[in-house]
Order: sequence, then C-alpha cells, then structure tokens
Amino acid sequence: MQEFMIPLNSKSELPLYEQICEYIKTEIQQGHLKAEEKLPSSRTLAKSLSVSRSTVELSYDQLVSEGYLEAIPCKGYYVCNIQGLYTFSKKLGDEKRISKKEEDKARSDYDFALNGIDAQGFPYNIWQKLSRRVLKEADSSLFQLGNPCGEQGFRQAVADYLYQARGVHCNLEQILIGAGNDYLLMLLGTILDRSKTIIMEDPTYLTAYYDFLHMGFQVETIEQDNNGLSVRELEKTGGEIVYVMPSHQFPMGTVMPLSRRMELLSWAGEKEGRYIIEDDYDSEFRYKGKPIPALKGFDNHDCVIYMGTFSKSLAPSIRVSYMVLPVRLMKQYQEQKHLFSVTVSKVDQKILELFLQEGYYQRHLNKMRGIYKGKHDFLLKYLREEMSQICQVSGEYAGVHLLLTFCNGLTEQEAVIRAKAAGILVYGLSEYCVYGNPNTSCKVLLGYACMREEELSQAVKTLKKVWEKK
Amino acid sequence: MQEFMIPLNSKSELPLYEQICEYIKTEIQQGHLKAEEKLPSSRTLAKSLSVSRSTVELSYDQLVSEGYLEAIPCKGYYVCNIQGLYTFSKKLGDEKRISKKEEDKARSDYDFALNGIDAQGFPYNIWQKLSRRVLKEADSSLFQLGNPCGEQGFRQAVADYLYQARGVHCNLEQILIGAGNDYLLMLLGTILDRSKTIIMEDPTYLTAYYDFLHMGFQVETIEQDNNGLSVRELEKTGGEIVYVMPSHQFPMGTVMPLSRRMELLSWAGEKEGRYIIEDDYDSEFRYKGKPIPALKGFDNHDCVIYMGTFSKSLAPSIRVSYMVLPVRLMKQYQEQKHLFSVTVSKVDQKILELFLQEGYYQRHLNKMRGIYKGKHDFLLKYLREEMSQICQVSGEYAGVHLLLTFCNGLTEQEAVIRAKAAGILVYGLSEYCVYGNPNTSCKVLLGYACMREEELSQAVKTLKKVWEKK
Repeated sequence: MQEFMIPLNSKSELPLYEQICEYIKTEIQQGHLKAEEKLPSSRTLAKSLSVSRSTVELSYDQLVSEGYLEAIPCKGYYVCNIQGLYTFSKKLGDEKRISKKEEDKARSDYDFALNGIDAQGFPYNIWQKLSRRVLKEADSSLFQLGNPCGEQGFRQAVADYLYQARGVHCNLEQILIGAGNDYLLMLLGTILDRSKTIIMEDPTYLTAYYDFLHMGFQVETIEQDNNGLSVRELEKTGGEIVYVMPSHQFPMGTVMPLSRRMELLSWAGEKEGRYIIEDDYDSEFRYKGKPIPALKGFDNHDCVIYMGTFSKSLAPSIRVSYMVLPVRLMKQYQEQKHLFSVTVSKVDQKILELFLQEGYYQRHLNKMRGIYKGKHDFLLKYLREEMSQICQVSGEYAGVHLLLTFCNGLTEQEAVIRAKAAGILVYGLSEYCVYGNPNTSCKVLLGYACMREEELSQAVKTLKKVWEKK
Repeated sequence: MQEFMIPLNSKSELPLYEQICEYIKTEIQQGHLKAEEKLPSSRTLAKSLSVSRSTVELSYDQLVSEGYLEAIPCKGYYVCNIQGLYTFSKKLGDEKRISKKEEDKARSDYDFALNGIDAQGFPYNIWQKLSRRVLKEADSSLFQLGNPCGEQGFRQAVADYLYQARGVHCNLEQILIGAGNDYLLMLLGTILDRSKTIIMEDPTYLTAYYDFLHMGFQVETIEQDNNGLSVRELEKTGGEIVYVMPSHQFPMGTVMPLSRRMELLSWAGEKEGRYIIEDDYDSEFRYKGKPIPALKGFDNHDCVIYMGTFSKSLAPSIRVSYMVLPVRLMKQYQEQKHLFSVTVSKVDQKILELFLQEGYYQRHLNKMRGIYKGKHDFLLKYLREEMSQICQVSGEYAGVHLLLTFCNGLTEQEAVIRAKAAGILVYGLSEYCVYGNPNTSCKVLLGYACMREEELSQAVKTLKKVWEKK
C-alpha cells in the first residue's frame, strides 16, 4: 500500500474530493499505482490529508464508479486493471454521418444544395438593430417564461402577414409558434389520433415522413401527377390525414392548381375527422402566374393545418416556424393539461414581431424575390441554352430548386457520380423517395439559393461536359 | 342584381382578387348586399372591372369559402345569410386559462411564484455584448442550418461545465441541445420504447408527467420518503424507466443522499434496459452541505439520462436545455434516419458557448447563488421568527423554493385562500400531486426567486396574521 501525498488546494474551484480523484486517477493512468494494489483506508487517508472521511469516501466511490478502483467488502479498495476501461474517444455514428456530408461539401467546388439560403441576403444590419433595441428596451418580463403558444404580439404579426400574403384568415389564437417544422409536427403528433394513418406523396419531404414514423404514426404514400397529389388515389387509401405542399411540392416542384386544391378541400370536407396538413415552406418565392392563396385560405370546413416557416425566407438557423390549427384542434390542444412550453426565445419572438410589423420582412422578401428570381432566370436561360439536348427542366415556377429529367439516357446515379467527380454536388431524386420509384430514377435536383451567378454558369458548363458524353 | 363599382388599386399590396373580396364582404356586412341577392356573373364583373375572369372567380371562390356567397350550379352566385356566420371573436380555452392566472398575478401584491427567477440578476450587459459580438463576427455559416444535435463548440462547453460543476463525465457526442426540457423529453420519447411504463414520484413535476402522457407513455407514480424516491417501491412496480430529481425534488425539495443515489443506481444496473431520467433542474443553487455530484456522475452502468437547463440559472425565456444520453441510447437516436433539427438558434448557441467558455456563467452563478442565498437566509430567519407556532419549514437546502407544513390545523386550501384574500399568492402542494394525496394536504410552497427582501418580510408578516387565527 502506497502513502499518498496529495497536494490539495482548498481555494481551487475543483472540490477536494475531485482533486483526490484526479490525483489517484493520474497515478493509475501513469502506472504509478498498479492493478490489484490496495489503497489506504478512507480513515487513514482522511487523517493524513486532514480532510473529512466522507470526502475521501466520495473520491473512492467516484473512482469505483469510473472503474479505476474496486471495493472489496471487508477488505478495502483495490486498483483495477484499466486496460479494458471504457473511454469516450470513439466517434458516434451521427457525427461521422454529418462529417461525411461535410467532407463531400468541403471537397466540391459547387454545391446545388437544397436546404440553403442566400446568406448574403440575410438582413444583418436590421437584425442587429432590432436585437439591440429589444435587449435595450428589455424589461424583466422579457426573461420570464412566456405564453406556451408564443407571444400574442408575435402571433398577431404572423396572423396579419398570413392574411396579406397568403390569403389565410385566422385568429392569433389558432397559431402555435415553434422552433422549426419538426417540432411543430411533434406537437401535432400529441393532438392527432396516433392510430390514424398519415398519407404522404412519394417522393416527399422525407424529414416529415420520418418525424411521423418516430412519433409512432403509420404512414402510407401515394403517387402524384402533374397537378400534384392525386385525390382519387387519396380516396382509395381510406386515410384521413394527408400531408401536402401545394405551393411548391418538395421535391417535385409541382404547383397545385386551384382546381386540384378545391378537389382536395372537398375531400377533407366530406367526412368529419379528415385533415390536410399544408406545408407552405417556400411559398414566398414564385416566378410565374398570380399568387395562389394557400389551401388554408379556402378552408371553409376548418380542416387545414397550415405550416409556415422563416427557415427558407430568412434563415434556417433562426429556428422559427408557425402552425395555424383548425379551431377545434386548437381547442383540443389547449384542453390538454400543462401545455408544452414554447421553444422560441422571447427575444427572438420580439425581434421577429418588430421585423414583421415595421415592414422589414416585406422589404426583405421583395429583395430576396429579386435575388432568387435573378438566379432562377439566369440558371434557366443557361440550362436551356446548354442542356436542351441533355435534359428537360421542371418544377421551376416557384421555390429555390428545380428538377432536371435526362433525355439522353443518363441514369440518375450516373449523373450524380459524374457531377461529383467534376466537383459539383447535385442531388438525385431517389434520395427523396420513400420507395425507390423506378419512374423517378432519371431526375436530379438543383438548389440554386446559395450559388452566385458566375458559379451557376461555371457549374452548368461543367455539367454539360460531363453529362453530354454517353 | 347590383352593378359594382369596385375601386381597384393595381399598386396596392393587396392582390386584386382580395380587393374585390374585401369590397363585396363589406357590402354584405353593411347590409348593402342582402341575403339571397344574386351577384353579377364572373364574366360580367370581369368585363366591367377590366380584370381577368379568373381574378373574379378567385374572389367568388374565396367568398364562398368564407361563407359570404353561395354558388348555385347553373344559376350563379348568391349572397348568404351571414347571421349565423362563424367568426373568430370567441376566445379559445387556453388564452382564458392563461389570462385567469395572469389576472390573479396582477391582483396580488406578492407572488411566491415557483417558476420565476430574479430578473434583476440577468446579465443584460454581458448578454448584449456577446450578442453584438456574435452578430458582428457572423459569417454566413451562422445562418445555415446547423448540427441537429447542437453545435459542437457549444456542446463541448456544456460538457466541460458538467464535468466541473456536476461531476458528470461525458463526451460532447452524448449531448443533445434543445429548446427546453419539454422538447428534450419529446425527443427522448422518440427513442424510448413507448410500451414501457415511466415511473415518477408523486407529487412531481407535473409538466413532465403530462409530457409523457401526451407522447403515449403509461406513467405510474410511487411514494417518496424523506430521502426521496423509495427504491423498494420502485422495485415493486416492475417498471424500467424512472424519472427523478435527486438534487432538489420538485416540489418536495428533498435532496437525495448519496446512499439512496447509490441504491437507485444499483437498481438500474441490475437489469438491461433500465434507465434513470435525472432532471437536475436547479442544482446550481445549494445552501447546505457539500455539493453532491449528479447521479450521472456515478453512472458506471451508463443508464442515466441527464437533463439540465439554463431556465433556472439564467432565464426561462432563453429556452435552452441539454440532455446527456447514455452512449447506447445516443447511438440508437442517431441511427434513426433524418434526425429532428435542432430547436435552438445558432446565434443563441454561440452566445451561450462564449458565456460558458469565457467564465461569465461561473461568475453569474456565483452572483445568483449569493442573491438567492441572501433571500433564502432572510426568508428562513423570518419564517422561524414569525411562524414557528404555525408551520414547519422543509425542502430548504437547495433550489429557490421551500415548503411549509402547517401544525396549527390549517388546511392547505384554507391557507392558500386566506393568503390570496390578503393579496399574497402561495401554492398548495396538492396542485403538484397526480392523485390528491391526503398526506400532503397541509403543505404550501413558497418560491422566493422573484421576491425582494422587503417584500419577503412584508409578505411573511401578513401571512402570519392571516394564518394565525383559527
């Protein structure tokens, strides 16, 4: 048994028991204390260090729990063999998965990413100004827990915006604020009957698909045609809840025409308990035709659950989305005891409220529409000039991505691989299919939000070269 | 049929169809257009207004959907009787519930609120400074979607903090960042087996109780003794997942001693699949004895799910919490396809990272500990001086609330009502019981975080008066 001379510092931020722990641990790690060696009793060590016995006991307990010591009843504490000791040095799966993607991105010259925004367009100055103002004017209430549905002022601003921009008539009390659509879907999952099947299009926004699965819902997918989700197919499923993106279906880019919207709404109105979840994720950006109001704008049976977000229009990292619930669903939600606390900070809610109310959002949207329309037109022109023999463009009427369908026999996989080899990331449609539909196997997606015009033209030139040769 | 002279403004932000809608709606609301009156055909109106027919059709569709018009096939559009028309003027349940509470709060002179913080203590200046710095140094990546688990830098800062302050050894890759504990429990709900029963103490943190119920879990409650949750009772349930608050049980205020912690950990280690959810919500504030490391600090079987929050230590409206998962659970979480996006904005994550890393948090905690200890000591002294004949104090070793147990025969309900009548809000323990336990019916809770010392003394004086008389 070894004598310990542990240099304890009573003024250290590290508690005494931790200092003892650390010392012994280091001794073991460096091999000064060998496996199976016996440690002094807690009484002896406490005495020699002039600390209480419980301090030493706490250290020993800690070391036992970490696997450095073993306590043998009636005998004492012994050093363990630490060869097999569990350490946290292994990377876990996810971080690897993320870094794989990051690696791809870092290696590529151009990335037609689908979830990006034009970060240059972010209104830094206004945001900073409003942020300063909110913090400066902050009274203590800004730091108290707020309304679980979101602050009333912010929800009113969202309601006003939805009325003006999307033709949605709703009361602030139908609105729930949340940190992203995933979260809002989770909230929705606590209201909807989990025994019901969710009907989705295929291909679709897979994140929502998996959100529903994670929450324990059954999900069934159906086909879509050129006008979007087929209501006839929907009827065949017998399902009662359907998830759609009528403004710009992801990933197909279809804008659902008014007639189909009306057909879908009639379907929902026909039977009690039917709901349409309308994900209006990038409706702010349209390039052709007059704006079509959201489904929710025509929702006279009050059965549309409307979801909107600032992720596409402002920045995904802002983490603010909103959901307009039918009155009866909102009632149901609010009759639950103890509502989930809101997930967006009051500061952010207040900044966004001012941003909307004082006209900054409108101006920002106009600016971004201009930016994206510029990129959109530029990319389209280039694609038509350079690629008309190779592929056809679709889904280009709205949003910030479009689809290419190859007409020269190139497969999706080949197109993606050839592009990647040339330093360009494009995304195969089958990545967004629940079941790898063979019909969709010769399409790739190009998101153009993050790309500058010169990058677009360079990338298209290169893509032409690598996609041209058979 | 009436001729319409609708003043259309093509430069207005309101689309033409909306302007037509609004005009007709107003005409109907003001009685200029009467029920059953026929409207001009869309073709006629379009011609007279020099707009496209589809614009008028959109307006009519909208008015039909809102219940102002009725479309009679082959005949045309007729004005509806709008007497019974649904309007959104009714307040929904929740807003009422909230405003009832708000009303109580507004009417009272003193509020021993349990979910408050000392807002004066919030580090406005530092927060503003860091916020400016983060926004100023912002590169475009700050506004791109981040790591679904939380930014690595921030998670590392949390891991470092947990090691130093709570004795928790974990890798950043075991940490999930989320906007509040409710949200993190929802995430957890997607990993844990929903067929398993969650065991909780009674009384407990009811929000978590309802969170589990909303997610579809069975919840069973068991009794606790003076050392906290009874492991013997736990064993009897046959349950495998238990939710505890060992640092300062809410609402009982019990600090679980080391021996009981070890007992609980052994229980978890005995059988594969057992988990302890440790909610360490206000462990930052302790007034007696040496700090006991979190359960997670002794978790050699890797079965403790640790939850911590900045809600108590910084501000509830900041909406940032964190969860440390056992390695195998984190693996399971990350093997899910498409992780839920993070719910905290990157800006807030970065501010908090700097706040932790640059020592501000440590300083803030020391300051708040001082403030709360001052209030705690002051309140205790006053209670002992004034109230020793009326009630006994418990749960006072940690946190920012304590319990009073009446020994003069006063019931909980009476105590709460008398206090309220005198302008003071105190909270009956039965509000936090899943089943109104008769044993707990003579206890009230006082939260003192939001109260100033002079308020505490005034409130205690008044409470003495109203509680004294039988």
